[in-house]
Amino acid sequence: MTRQELIDNIYRKRSFLCVGLDTDIKKIPAHIAALPDPIFTFNKAIIDATAPYCVAYKPNMAFYESFGAMGWDALERTISYIHTNYPDQFIIADAKRGDIGNTSSLYARSFFEHLNVDAITVAPYMGEDSVTPFLGYEGKWVILLALTSNKGSHDFQFIKNESGTPLYQNVIEKSSQWASDDAMMYVVGATQGKMFEHIRRIAPSSFLLVPGVGAQGGSLEEVCRYGMIDKECGLLVNSSRGIIYASSDIDFAEAAEKEAAKLARQMSKLLS
Amino acid sequence: MTRQELIDNIYRKRSFLCVGLDTDIKKIPAHIAALPDPIFTFNKAIIDATAPYCVAYKPNMAFYESFGAMGWDALERTISYIHTNYPDQFIIADAKRGDIGNTSSLYARSFFEHLNVDAITVAPYMGEDSVTPFLGYEGKWVILLALTSNKGSHDFQFIKNESGTPLYQNVIEKSSQWASDDAMMYVVGATQGKMFEHIRRIAPSSFLLVPGVGAQGGSLEEVCRYGMIDKECGLLVNSSRGIIYASSDIDFAEAAEKEAAKLARQMSKLLS
Repeated sequence: MTRQELIDNIYRKRSFLCVGLDTDIKKIPAHIAALPDPIFTFNKAIIDATAPYCVAYKPNMAFYESFGAMGWDALERTISYIHTNYPDQFIIADAKRGDIGNTSSLYARSFFEHLNVDAITVAPYMGEDSVTPFLGYEGKWVILLALTSNKGSHDFQFIKNESGTPLYQNVIEKSSQWASDDAMMYVVGATQGKMFEHIRRIAPSSFLLVPGVGAQGGSLEEVCRYGMIDKECGLLVNSSRGIIYASSDIDFAEAAEKEAAKLARQMSKLLS
Repeated sequence: MTRQELIDNIYRKRSFLCVGLDTDIKKIPAHIAALPDPIFTFNKAIIDATAPYCVAYKPNMAFYESFGAMGWDALERTISYIHTNYPDQFIIADAKRGDIGNTSSLYARSFFEHLNVDAITVAPYMGEDSVTPFLGYEGKWVILLALTSNKGSHDFQFIKNESGTPLYQNVIEKSSQWASDDAMMYVVGATQGKMFEHIRRIAPSSFLLVPGVGAQGGSLEEVCRYGMIDKECGLLVNSSRGIIYASSDIDFAEAAEKEAAKLARQMSKLLS
């Protein structure tokens, strides 16, 4: 999906919501967990309920890998289901991969050719040749970790270099030489609300994937105040647990729809 | 596997060789690629040929993921084959994972409970709560990326902080507070030969997983001169392509055996 197509979808649907498909068999309703194909069945219901209110889905690979081959199979069918039924959705594999060049090339093949997602999250620690193999696929995106939403983000990401520049800034500045903003986004956690002002000085036109709204405590208003780009939005705000586990009962899909609709209403206002 | 068991295996076999199972369907011999179960068949032949000369196997996840559910299945059977037939081998999932706490917990479950490997490589960028969920499994290990063997290692890993400490040193020093050296190792690339002297000042007793000997050009002698620990070795030196693709013909297993034996002979001398 191109940058312009993504922007068009956001303004047409009046939403920049990304729904995180962190599907954990231990957390899905008992009546679904008992079925022969619980992960896909759960995902399908969540997708059908939330698709009108979001522009992206983000399955986190860990949740599928934890079921081995069976989990991969459920993931492949989930992605194929979205492509077939909701072709305007942007699909992000939250994988946080990154390895030496020839290995990253294989990951790229796996995610962009085999799974056929639109974007993959990548960890920056190994540098340029671990990231560039993911670039150069027409309409595909790298979403590089910059400033994450977790407590451990303070261990290394804020370390200042000899000129006083924090590591996350080094990551953004260096990596912006590897790709333009129609092929690279950055992960910036919503829990770092006030940091968005600084991020926008370093990355004025990049799309930001923003986890941490909801269960992790980030504020949507704050993220938008400092992070939104006029007429282009420039944000994909993710909510996972707050939507997909809104109810653990038979009404889980309706509850997810309600939560997604609520966020979309807030987003519609913030887009004005 | 405990640290002492690993050390005992190394001195009993006179080898600290790790064989990287980077099995690429495009590179394996044609007569194997044509079989119905090519990845497992290839791995089984390589393992049977090299097991006397190595103490560890390191499948890189990218190579299996690139075949989706089928690749996972081949990986699961490869690991199970090693456990059953060569229970003294240390198995490393080269996965370079790392995510927010609850997600890393799932990866840990996936790798340590489902796949049942001894160790997993982890990327440090997201900090403590992305790493600690992998700790606390009896006899299981985290192998944290510190100084990698690729060109891109120079992009961020050498950035010096305001006190002149490079990032890889920050990573080792900070993470050594999270686990002792019987649960955490570090990746240090052989292409950074002379750096081992510095690494040993920061991490005097940690095991180091050393990629980059062979195809990537690192020197085994240099790594040992600066990196080996007296009576404990403290090194696992990996070779992937140099062994498993030593021949692309019908004699691939014999060729792999020859290469592994050659490295083991060099290692035996270096252990003296």
